[in-house]
Amino acid sequence: MRTIRYREIAEDLRRRVAEGELGAGRVLPSEAELSATYEVSRVTIRKALELLRQDGLVDSRQGFGWFVAVDPVSQSLGRLGTIESQLAESGAAPVRKILDFGFVGAPSEVADVLGPGQVLRVRRVNLADGAPFARVTVWCPERLGAQLSRADVERASFYDLIGVPLGGATQTIGAGAASDADAAVLHVPVGSPVLVCDRVTRDAEGTPVLVSEHVFPAHLTEFVVDLPHVAGSISPTGIRLVD
Amino acid sequence: MRTIRYREIAEDLRRRVAEGELGAGRVLPSEAELSATYEVSRVTIRKALELLRQDGLVDSRQGFGWFVAVDPVSQSLGRLGTIESQLAESGAAPVRKILDFGFVGAPSEVADVLGPGQVLRVRRVNLADGAPFARVTVWCPERLGAQLSRADVERASFYDLIGVPLGGATQTIGAGAASDADAAVLHVPVGSPVLVCDRVTRDAEGTPVLVSEHVFPAHLTEFVVDLPHVAGSISPTGIRLVD
Repeated sequence: MRTIRYREIAEDLRRRVAEGELGAGRVLPSEAELSATYEVSRVTIRKALELLRQDGLVDSRQGFGWFVAVDPVSQSLGRLGTIESQLAESGAAPVRKILDFGFVGAPSEVADVLGPGQVLRVRRVNLADGAPFARVTVWCPERLGAQLSRADVERASFYDLIGVPLGGATQTIGAGAASDADAAVLHVPVGSPVLVCDRVTRDAEGTPVLVSEHVFPAHLTEFVVDLPHVAGSISPTGIRLVD
Repeated sequence: MRTIRYREIAEDLRRRVAEGELGAGRVLPSEAELSATYEVSRVTIRKALELLRQDGLVDSRQGFGWFVAVDPVSQSLGRLGTIESQLAESGAAPVRKILDFGFVGAPSEVADVLGPGQVLRVRRVNLADGAPFARVTVWCPERLGAQLSRADVERASFYDLIGVPLGGATQTIGAGAASDADAAVLHVPVGSPVLVCDRVTRDAEGTPVLVSEHVFPAHLTEFVVDLPHVAGSISPTGIRLVD
């Protein structure tokens, strides 16, 4: 009897995924928790999970443990766009949920870019098909933020709302480990890998008008960039071009 | 006497950094290890480290613990370039150290891009000013790799060596947690955040000629990209352009 227990557990997990209790990208309870839930050893749990992995239903990754398999959203780094537009292009339904809306003194990194004084700070979570996809913080100068309501920033993007022709943005992309706040909002383990993007958006005259930080669980997204070859930047064998 | 012990420890750590025993970006021993080394409580160790942090000499980050403060290298995502060229632009002296050089059957993800058969696989670590900066694996088709020696790939970049005019590359950027192999080569804790880049480089006709994977400790580097605004892609308040 005991030899087929892991198959029963696999079937039960399969049902929970099919019924939507565990959605795509959702981090599963730890092996220890599953072991307690199903009252079996961790070896049995791992056999069940390996069976589901072979079927492509779950996957595992260092720092996460197991999660329901998901194709990461590819965010292309070509032109200025929003998370919502990237999600829409990938076929997911994007929604913003505002966590916090208020005016604060600009923190020093923001004041360095937008200047000193009060800024509108909006904290939100972006959902894709109902599941957390990104934790976002936006800082907006008081003169632009004063016109906006909490309902506005939930309904539309800052790019659509601030009423300023945009010139472009500079984005930095780094990796980090999920903080307590990230973990709570994004439903990932504390310390699990995240992509952290800082963006400064400028108006058509080049003046910074928005600062934002975007934190993405590592298994849900990746950035894609095309790097053109510029003649002379890389030379063929044996030829060294002098700049 | 005990109240100044943390200052003595801070001075000792400061000396070890100044003398180069602990270089920029180097992850410090854990608080528990330092506590054992200096035979004091972790509270005392933390006081010493906070003192050094105030002076800008060390920094901490979730997933890493403490490390010797370092300005991350900004790698710009504009045109095709090498890690070595990015390091040289940032003022660091780049060196390649080959870990492994040999022909293997193409793994499936590589075969999908380069076609089936044997490939030259080179594993290396890129050093910046003598410290590990990236763990790199390159897969090169047999017809191009057959001409190359281990000494060649240590001396020059694949871009310079393969003797093929390059067209460009597509790079994906994700976040991960350091594997055992990453940790051993990059001198970071297992599970600490890393940037993981996969790159497919094409020749001038668009045929893939190299596949590579680059793993960077998160505290040592970040990617920077300029996102131009393309007219019509984002509309000002109240105006919705129809594509």
